[in-house]
Amino acid sequence: MLQDHNNSTICAPATASGSGAISIVRVSGQEAIEIVSKIFVSAKGRSLADMKGYTMCYGTIVGPDAQVLDDVVLGVYRSPESYTGEDMVEISSHASPYIVSELLDLLVESGCSFASSGEFTKRAFLNGKMDLAQAEAVADVIASETEASHRIAMQQLKGGFSEELAKMRRQLLHLVSLMELELDFSEEEVEFADRAELKNLLDITTSHISELVSSFKLGNAIKNGVPVAIVGATNTGKSTLLNALLGEDRAIVSSIAGTTRDTIEDTMNVGGILFRFIDTAGIRRTLETIEIAGIERTYFKIKQAAIVMLVLDYTRQGDFEESIKNLSNNLGDNDQKIVILLNKIDEKPLVATNLFDDRGPQAAAPEENIASVCETISNLATAAGLAPIAILPICAKNLTGLEELRAVLVSSQSNMSSAGGALLVSNRRHFTALKEAYEALLKASVALTENRPGDLVAQDIRDALYSLGTIVGEISTDEVLENIFKSFCIGK
Amino acid sequence: MLQDHNNSTICAPATASGSGAISIVRVSGQEAIEIVSKIFVSAKGRSLADMKGYTMCYGTIVGPDAQVLDDVVLGVYRSPESYTGEDMVEISSHASPYIVSELLDLLVESGCSFASSGEFTKRAFLNGKMDLAQAEAVADVIASETEASHRIAMQQLKGGFSEELAKMRRQLLHLVSLMELELDFSEEEVEFADRAELKNLLDITTSHISELVSSFKLGNAIKNGVPVAIVGATNTGKSTLLNALLGEDRAIVSSIAGTTRDTIEDTMNVGGILFRFIDTAGIRRTLETIEIAGIERTYFKIKQAAIVMLVLDYTRQGDFEESIKNLSNNLGDNDQKIVILLNKIDEKPLVATNLFDDRGPQAAAPEENIASVCETISNLATAAGLAPIAILPICAKNLTGLEELRAVLVSSQSNMSSAGGALLVSNRRHFTALKEAYEALLKASVALTENRPGDLVAQDIRDALYSLGTIVGEISTDEVLENIFKSFCIGK
Repeated sequence: MLQDHNNSTICAPATASGSGAISIVRVSGQEAIEIVSKIFVSAKGRSLADMKGYTMCYGTIVGPDAQVLDDVVLGVYRSPESYTGEDMVEISSHASPYIVSELLDLLVESGCSFASSGEFTKRAFLNGKMDLAQAEAVADVIASETEASHRIAMQQLKGGFSEELAKMRRQLLHLVSLMELELDFSEEEVEFADRAELKNLLDITTSHISELVSSFKLGNAIKNGVPVAIVGATNTGKSTLLNALLGEDRAIVSSIAGTTRDTIEDTMNVGGILFRFIDTAGIRRTLETIEIAGIERTYFKIKQAAIVMLVLDYTRQGDFEESIKNLSNNLGDNDQKIVILLNKIDEKPLVATNLFDDRGPQAAAPEENIASVCETISNLATAAGLAPIAILPICAKNLTGLEELRAVLVSSQSNMSSAGGALLVSNRRHFTALKEAYEALLKASVALTENRPGDLVAQDIRDALYSLGTIVGEISTDEVLENIFKSFCIGK
Repeated sequence: MLQDHNNSTICAPATASGSGAISIVRVSGQEAIEIVSKIFVSAKGRSLADMKGYTMCYGTIVGPDAQVLDDVVLGVYRSPESYTGEDMVEISSHASPYIVSELLDLLVESGCSFASSGEFTKRAFLNGKMDLAQAEAVADVIASETEASHRIAMQQLKGGFSEELAKMRRQLLHLVSLMELELDFSEEEVEFADRAELKNLLDITTSHISELVSSFKLGNAIKNGVPVAIVGATNTGKSTLLNALLGEDRAIVSSIAGTTRDTIEDTMNVGGILFRFIDTAGIRRTLETIEIAGIERTYFKIKQAAIVMLVLDYTRQGDFEESIKNLSNNLGDNDQKIVILLNKIDEKPLVATNLFDDRGPQAAAPEENIASVCETISNLATAAGLAPIAILPICAKNLTGLEELRAVLVSSQSNMSSAGGALLVSNRRHFTALKEAYEALLKASVALTENRPGDLVAQDIRDALYSLGTIVGEISTDEVLENIFKSFCIGK
């Protein structure tokens, strides 16, 4: 139990604000029932104090001026059988922002304090209702948008990840105890444990942790979306493409070059996979400081993306070479997938490529021309050292070719669907702790191989145990907890 | 009971979607408990079928593939002690759109149908849990944003309005029975009731209904907001003013004349009074069809507004006279309040009014100049036959003068705060029915005065009774119900 676990009774709205039938305000703490009793009149004259856990009561919320605020249903929970482990009352009122706000005021006047972000879940953790990894999973379960991310989050919430960690920690503790047995008798220079066998045990756990560390890339992509950067010269239709993909007017689109000065991101579930589409500022030579900043952010986003979609404007073919070279010079180093989109194919090129063709200008059929332009793009890409997974003719404005694009995106992430029931790490804090544990175990392994003293080896393993312990919160500080729960909503 | 009351078991989300801790899905109907049992596993092995009303149960929602969807708490209600009067289950899950969507799918696969808009409340009405005026009040309670509108809605929900109507209907029924007693003996040409006394009774009820009809203007303003039209020439800063008043980027603002082509409305609670601010297309001479349509809508909005705020651009004083005349020619006839705003006072006039002043251009102190411009505006207004309640210098971009503007708006509606506990009609359907009843009673009154036959008088009173009966739903048609409940949210 940590120090800052205070005894106040807290309240907060637990349901989203907005259009609905019911809103719930949650009250948790020793005085939950006493405080709610002050502002509630049961329709049947029942006393809240006599109510058992997991029962409900109908009545009205009444202010100090005897004015009826609303008809409500109370749900009563008795410690320790509640979400927080404390006495709790959930007040279901009509879903009016006015009522919820007045109700919270009445509760505070009657002795509650406003809950801080994630305080209900934090209390659940502090009262031993769940470990820290499970508490973090609550936020992930709520945020999950796809089956895959929901599965990871539920696995973690139901304790699957915690069990796995517990198993590894037991193995490491066993190793430490063997090392310490050796230490106890060290003056007699006895080696109890066979070091080769110890190393074998250590390597099994290390490789298991290494697998979890590696799973983060996939887990993170499933949870936060596969980052797809949409890049290209100004006014090639990047924002139009983003809107077309998202199916709404997310980015402001205009035909004035340089409209998107900041990066705009939004996630979308495509074929069961969450993609994070990132619209970027168009790249062009400019002296405007605000645009230069935008272009630098664009380069940063390109390096972070798993997929980079380069948008070329069919009507401005003179720009192709520079755009392709520019992208090639700004890619990251972690095998990013490139898709080149030939946009605006429904419009006439301003400069026909076949202007001096034997057959005269515009003699080629449009399809033939588009195919030959794609061929040119392919050659330019090869020359620039790029190997795009697809070159697709589209027209974002008319939604032409978008189905093909979606199919390319989904098939580029075929590893996702094969993830099956494997345990995936999706939380960056867990990833960092696992990496620390992994590095400590590598050091222990080297020390074992080099026949270093047992206490040094044991210390490395203890470091790894510490890191693993922070994940489930067996070891935690106020600061760590604050960081975790501040990203929660009020009421969670 | 009406015909279309079907026996299906319905489900719908009852809480708003969005960021929150808990979501609730409601299930109502004869098979509610049976259907939920198919997808729920109690943590303690309890059977839902054995659960009493007003009790809760913790467990998991499990799909057909035995995959755990979520940990939930069920709230069970038994007919008739529930919102709808039917068996009901409320499923509290984590507030994840993915979970809610999967849960609804599971419920439908298990035999539920999706509830239509307002179907829970419609069933409550059909099952006699509330009358129609109370059912309509549910939507009003939820939508209330101010204390005054909440008070009107709660009064109606708790049956205050229905009681008042019942009293009036009893009085009218008494009158009808007296008239009919007369009819039964009509062949004997006997007048049982003293017609003067009958007329007196009739007039009391008529005047009561007349008060209710008149209360609609205030009730409607309290419920839907006092309509404030923001008008003026193009690019005078109307949208900037709307944004400044609402404190957010509601309207798209640009310095290109004619940006706001459609009217944009939003309500805001100012000093406890709800105002409905209506941004309108700027008025200018134009040949563009799309803008002409916008300007015609503007004229329509001006006529409907209770307050018209004319925005003048301090930097374009040559436009003042035309703008003021234009407004004067397009006002409605129901004593609208006019506020004239001199906007952009922090900017230099493009044409200084005192250009040929003795002291030379820009010799006057800015305050002095603004005061003299306001004086000019006042004279122009008087010449155009307008009597503005205020002429205020502001700068919407810098939020200058907005506090003064808010004070003017609030004090212009002083009748609102004095509304006190009086019964106000705020529903247009009720208003229409009351007006019909009122007109029928006026006819009855004339018929009584003119000593027309009792059956004619009785028929007029019966017409009034019919109109009043439609309000609480004693008389209602499928069409009326459909119209009322289609404006409800799903889940209400």
